[in-house]
Parts: sequence; C-alpha cells; structure tokens
Amino acid sequence: MSAGTIYGVGLGPGDPELMSVRADRLVRSARHVAFFRKVGRRGRARTIVEGMLRPDAVEFAMEYPVTTEIRFDDPAYSDCLSKFYLNVTTRLRDLSNRGCDVVVLCEGDPFFYGSFMHLYARLKDDVPINVIPAITGMSAAWTATGIPVTWGDDVMTVLLGTMPQDDLTRHLRDADAHVIMKIGRNLQKVRDAVAQAGKLDRAWLIECASMTEQRVMPLAQAEGQSAPYFSTVVIHGNGRRPS
Amino acid sequence: MSAGTIYGVGLGPGDPELMSVRADRLVRSARHVAFFRKVGRRGRARTIVEGMLRPDAVEFAMEYPVTTEIRFDDPAYSDCLSKFYLNVTTRLRDLSNRGCDVVVLCEGDPFFYGSFMHLYARLKDDVPINVIPAITGMSAAWTATGIPVTWGDDVMTVLLGTMPQDDLTRHLRDADAHVIMKIGRNLQKVRDAVAQAGKLDRAWLIECASMTEQRVMPLAQAEGQSAPYFSTVVIHGNGRRPS
Repeated sequence: MSAGTIYGVGLGPGDPELMSVRADRLVRSARHVAFFRKVGRRGRARTIVEGMLRPDAVEFAMEYPVTTEIRFDDPAYSDCLSKFYLNVTTRLRDLSNRGCDVVVLCEGDPFFYGSFMHLYARLKDDVPINVIPAITGMSAAWTATGIPVTWGDDVMTVLLGTMPQDDLTRHLRDADAHVIMKIGRNLQKVRDAVAQAGKLDRAWLIECASMTEQRVMPLAQAEGQSAPYFSTVVIHGNGRRPS
Repeated sequence: MSAGTIYGVGLGPGDPELMSVRADRLVRSARHVAFFRKVGRRGRARTIVEGMLRPDAVEFAMEYPVTTEIRFDDPAYSDCLSKFYLNVTTRLRDLSNRGCDVVVLCEGDPFFYGSFMHLYARLKDDVPINVIPAITGMSAAWTATGIPVTWGDDVMTVLLGTMPQDDLTRHLRDADAHVIMKIGRNLQKVRDAVAQAGKLDRAWLIECASMTEQRVMPLAQAEGQSAPYFSTVVIHGNGRRPS
C-alpha cells in the first residue's frame, strides 16, 4: 500500500467562488479533512467550505491549545504549541501511513504567512505533501478598493501591523505601494505610522475582503482603536517607470 | 436595454486548474472574449483558456502595435500606445452599450502589475466593470520552491528586475523576504544585486511557475545572461518574530 498524500489546500480570501478549480475539486472529493481552529469556534477555514464536503467526510479539527492566554514570548507558549504540532502531525502521518489522503484546509495561500507551514516543516521529509497556492487576502483587499495596487516599476512592501511603529514608518517611506496585514488591535499605531510617512491620504482600510461583511474605507476615516482580525491596509502605487 | 459588464478576469499563473471557480465559469460561459497579444502570437492569456471557450464565442484579440521596437521613454511609444488603448476601449464600450458582457482575459491578478488597468482606467467611469482577483505568478513561484516565503513578522518586498542595481541592492538589504519579477534580460544584474546584498545562497530562480515548462534552481546556478520572460526570483524569509 502506498502512502497517502497530505494536501495543503489554499482556500483563498474567504469567498468560496475564489477557490481555485483544483482546490474546489480536492475539497469536494476529500474523505479526510483537517483544519485549525480555536477551541469553541467553528473555524474560519471550515466555515469557507460549508456545504462542500462529502457526507462521509471525516473531519479532524486541530484545536489550538492556546491563543492569547499566554504571551508568545513566554517559553511556555512555544512549548505548548510544539506539543500541539507534534500531536497533530503524528495523527496526519498515521493517516498517510494507512494510505489515506488528507486535505488540510488553509485560509489564504498556504506558503504566505500561513499556519500550514508548521505542519509542513514537520512532515515534508517523510510524508508526500502537495501544496495548492491560492488567492491571497491582500489580492482580495486591493481588488475591493477598485484601484490597481501596482503598475510600471512600483516597488511593493508587505508589512505587519504588529511591527514597531518606527519600522513601519521607515518601510512606508521607502517603497511605492504597501500592504499592511494583521491590523486588529494595531489600528491606531498603523494609522500613526502611515501619517508619519505622509501617506494617510492614499491609504485604505479593507475589512473582510471578498466576504459578505466586506467594508472599504479611507484609513483616515476609520474610527476607534481596533479593526476586525481580517483587516488590511492598502496604499496604492503610482505607476513609477524607470527613468 | 441595460449596459453589459466588462469582466477583468484574472487567470492566475498559467495552470488552468489554478483559475478560480468564478473565473472558470465566466470564461466557459462568455459570448465575447477579449485578450492582449503581440502581433503574430497566440497570446499567453488566450493560450491558458485553450479548449474552454464556447464554440460560438466571439474573440477580440487586442494586438499591441509596438512592444520593443520603440523605446518606452520615446514620446512616440506612449503616443502609439495611447491610440491603441483608445481604439480597443472604444470597441469594448460599444459592446457594453449594446448590452453585451465581455470577458477580458488577464494573466495573473488584474490589479497587480496587470495590463488590464490601462483599459480599466479608461472605462471605469462610464462602463460597469467587475474585476476578479487571481493567484499571482509569485504565489506559484514560491509554491514551486517547496519553502514558505513568509512567516511570523517577515517583511516582504516585491521588486522588478528592470530597476537600477543599486536600488535593488538597497531594498534587498532592508527586508526579510523578496520577490523579484521581470527577470528576463536583467538576470545578470539581479544576480549581482542579490550577491551584493549577501543573499545569493538563499535565492531561487523559478521559470514558468505552475506551467508544464516549470524549472526551479538556485539563482547562483542559473547560467547565462537572461532567463525566460516568465521568470521570478524568490528569497524566503526566516520567520522573524517581534522581539
């Protein structure tokens, strides 16, 4: 009996119609489906494929043991997560050894800031793995603004709202187009950094791009100290051409 | 009679199975299909959808009047292209006014360094337009390397091989992960810039990602002075976490 394949299937930004044809087929035909989620939640990846799974699909919810209860720089945090990843990869490896294919549902693109890489790093040397790229959340975000994000020789930088404000400002000064992800509770800091870099009048905040809850607004008009988890800031390039 | 919609349909990196479910449906059901191509060529976008069009689909090949015959900084170049875009958008607007929907085939993601924006900018104020995001060529490129491109707080920069070498080197020193597009005849310059930034041992060259001709190799081993048009350099991040 040959080993089963673990498929890291990118589901894209959230709209099921933005899944690739290959991802759609793999999800609909899967006998074993695995996905991350927080304890007590449905799971965002699982929610995207609602109504698509085979009636006899066996679901493996990989439930994070901690999320924000322990600070990520506490050694107990990485210790706890390491045991979790060991447990879930042991189960995935067992399924593969028994000849079962497993579809791992991944939000966005698996290799672009994705949680799948924690499984991939632990399995890739002894289990057949196949990764299916997907439309990123940032593609859905800039599409939602109705303005092309880059053209000509624009340089684009992808930043994280979790970065120190000075780092954000420095990077925002040194490229043409920008995407800032992980906004959430960093909204005020991000807005300050964008203003410091002189780009507040060109910045957009996109919440839940491609989903039914999608909202698009100028960053300057975003109220409050935080934004939903699935929020992205986009600053469009201006079509720089080589001189 | 209501106006027809112009659909800017992202086809993704080249593998037809990596088109989104929505793009696949729009392409297969389209009565009017438009696409850019060079004179005398089949056209890359048109090639991706080979075998997918309706038998009665009306094809509109938008053939570039110049490509490399005139330098892009010559005023005659932009003059020539302006007339071309005026002509093709006049025809697209006429189709819309007659109530016809038109699917414009776009390689990659339409709003990410895409040619579609030249049509979009000229039509968006008076024609209904709908843009479908897609998997970018760079997603297919980093997936082909079998290594996640970003994790943790990695900062990623997208650069163009057409940029001056010093600019390339500076940007390559100031972020964690990098994608360099438009390699082509800039291969030697790009390799020199990557080496200057001390990242040659981490750099990969990907040709024709997701296509049957796909090749992946360390950039240091890439021979010669040029690479195919559809070549991308990927330098992976190392999972920086906020300290």
